[in-house]
Amino acid sequence: MTSAQEWAALYRRELLDNVVPFWETYGIDRQCGGFLTCLDRQGRPWSTDKYMWLQGRAVWMFARLHRQLDAGRGWLDLATRGAAFLRAHGRDPATGRVYFSLTRDGRPIHLQRKIYSEVFYVLALCEMARATGREEYLAEARDVFWLIYDLWRHPEKLGRPMLSGAPRGSSLADPMVFLCMIEELSPIDTDPRYAELADEMTRVALRHVRRDRQLVLEHVGPDGETFDTPKGRLINPGHAIEMGWFLIHLAQRTGRRDLMATALEIIDWSFRAGWDTEFGGLYYFLDADGRPCTQLEANMKLWWPATEALYALALAWRVTGDDRWLDLHRKNHDWAWQHFRDPEFGEWFGYLDRRGEPTHQLKGGEWKGFFHLPRALLYLVLLLES
Amino acid sequence: MTSAQEWAALYRRELLDNVVPFWETYGIDRQCGGFLTCLDRQGRPWSTDKYMWLQGRAVWMFARLHRQLDAGRGWLDLATRGAAFLRAHGRDPATGRVYFSLTRDGRPIHLQRKIYSEVFYVLALCEMARATGREEYLAEARDVFWLIYDLWRHPEKLGRPMLSGAPRGSSLADPMVFLCMIEELSPIDTDPRYAELADEMTRVALRHVRRDRQLVLEHVGPDGETFDTPKGRLINPGHAIEMGWFLIHLAQRTGRRDLMATALEIIDWSFRAGWDTEFGGLYYFLDADGRPCTQLEANMKLWWPATEALYALALAWRVTGDDRWLDLHRKNHDWAWQHFRDPEFGEWFGYLDRRGEPTHQLKGGEWKGFFHLPRALLYLVLLLES
Repeated sequence: MTSAQEWAALYRRELLDNVVPFWETYGIDRQCGGFLTCLDRQGRPWSTDKYMWLQGRAVWMFARLHRQLDAGRGWLDLATRGAAFLRAHGRDPATGRVYFSLTRDGRPIHLQRKIYSEVFYVLALCEMARATGREEYLAEARDVFWLIYDLWRHPEKLGRPMLSGAPRGSSLADPMVFLCMIEELSPIDTDPRYAELADEMTRVALRHVRRDRQLVLEHVGPDGETFDTPKGRLINPGHAIEMGWFLIHLAQRTGRRDLMATALEIIDWSFRAGWDTEFGGLYYFLDADGRPCTQLEANMKLWWPATEALYALALAWRVTGDDRWLDLHRKNHDWAWQHFRDPEFGEWFGYLDRRGEPTHQLKGGEWKGFFHLPRALLYLVLLLES
Repeated sequence: MTSAQEWAALYRRELLDNVVPFWETYGIDRQCGGFLTCLDRQGRPWSTDKYMWLQGRAVWMFARLHRQLDAGRGWLDLATRGAAFLRAHGRDPATGRVYFSLTRDGRPIHLQRKIYSEVFYVLALCEMARATGREEYLAEARDVFWLIYDLWRHPEKLGRPMLSGAPRGSSLADPMVFLCMIEELSPIDTDPRYAELADEMTRVALRHVRRDRQLVLEHVGPDGETFDTPKGRLINPGHAIEMGWFLIHLAQRTGRRDLMATALEIIDWSFRAGWDTEFGGLYYFLDADGRPCTQLEANMKLWWPATEALYALALAWRVTGDDRWLDLHRKNHDWAWQHFRDPEFGEWFGYLDRRGEPTHQLKGGEWKGFFHLPRALLYLVLLLES
């Protein structure tokens, strides 16, 4: 039986020897600022476009590593330069909205009709505020946070026509990103509205939970109704598992025992439903009724559900003390270590087919950057060393 | 050695016994009009939403089968009722644009910032005009055709912000859909602009061809420049093969020998570049320089590149008389027949992993309907019986 200390040492080594050096070596754009995330197996860039979800996430990650792991490795400097690029080029001057992608030198390519570019901008600046103590970061993070809230309340402002047949309702990602932002903002910004909003978003998130069916739906109606459509039946096990550990953190902060129990159930159901008993690994998408999925990548195995489960299962083990969780953790850990990890060139592969063979050799792209894997490893180190 | 007559008989049986009955039985919405395309392996609907690309394509296909194969099977009636649904619900009254998707009863769900919903609407009504001789279909097809041309010339009218870093240029799909629409419209609508436009679109399409590298790029700059970006390096072998047979048809109509030679080269290069020599089948996407593809489905095997190659290789064989093409045709045919075809429940699977195993059991969805497979089979029958 591996002890918590041995697990912690393993994850610390992985973070410091196999993951962070890859991004420090290949992922910093020392010429134009910001980060290069489209990196091939060896770390060579295959695109220099800058995806703002990943730019914001990398700033957050480097600043967080500085604050929570080691202030002596120059990580804050990398984060600060990334934040400067974000702030110089990231927002549409007319509306304050955050672009989805930029050219290498910061010219805007694309603006999504979604709120998530703004979300990672807030997380980046909020962590910069925590790491540096500088008020200007917090002030801008706060501004963008309320812009996001306004866009969420008035989605017509995102510019998507509101057609009469389009289903109204709630996407799980929305309450999750609010809970995530509030977890980051509330320790440094005293505003009673955060606690109220966390309650509201928790209620919204829990409307996605189907206790009788032991599952979490990605999309439900405005009052939590189930839609018998592909969107309404969609399950994303990795996403639900991520929500599980968000809710454990919230339960720890608020002392809500009911929330802790629900969070543990969500992780348990979602891991079991998502696990491929034939080839191992977590499916990316499932249909709640076993009907076809529209997503072509549905039965692929992606790195981020694996890393979310890595942290969530270890966290569940530590908060319950029940070794049943450790067994699940070990199963997920062993499969992920064997299939995603690249001992030859560092970092992890992102995209495997159902059998666990890489469909892509890339280490980073439009969606995979310096975030899910190092975040899980950092959180695991902090959890298991404590 | 199989003769042309034997091939023709095989494809006729496949069309009439294995493909058309599946859609006649499961794909007609006799309650609300239009077609159900989201069908599982057995033909049961897994969504009732109506995707306008596929609604227009199904109208075109049934009307075409009536006109070119058999007028005695009720196909024109199915097409006519489909066209009535399209015309009743398909267009935004304010702008004339065609929606991307509707609810089962015809309420709009989504409007794309692309021209392709309009394209398949034009093809549907144009074929209805040819099949019925009714002027009203042609008049509306003509109107929407010039609306598409205007949107292509003035893409800002599609509503996508034209940001300063977004690459300008040409997508191969655009000249291809114009060539396709002109192929359909010009036999029944005497307008000298079609021939001029066909010349213009042929020039635009040929700017995507890289003779020195023996490949066709999906995206090039306004003057045909190559972009060293993932989008600029993207190859879609099935799409290039489809362009190949479009150009053979155009060369046959215009007597242009240079175009015929280029078309044959495009099919040859694209089939050889796209063929997976390890597992067989055509890759969905490739990067021209072997760099990573952004598309998660890049190494999957889809039904439609296989069916485009089925017709293109047989056509190349017939126009050249060279049995080298027949060898390629047989290779593609055998793999497709073995892996895509479902002898148990009819029709073909749409989505296989690289090894050729179905990742999805569905027979139809948002993108797969009554079009690529029956079109290829009809064209093969007409080609090989002649």
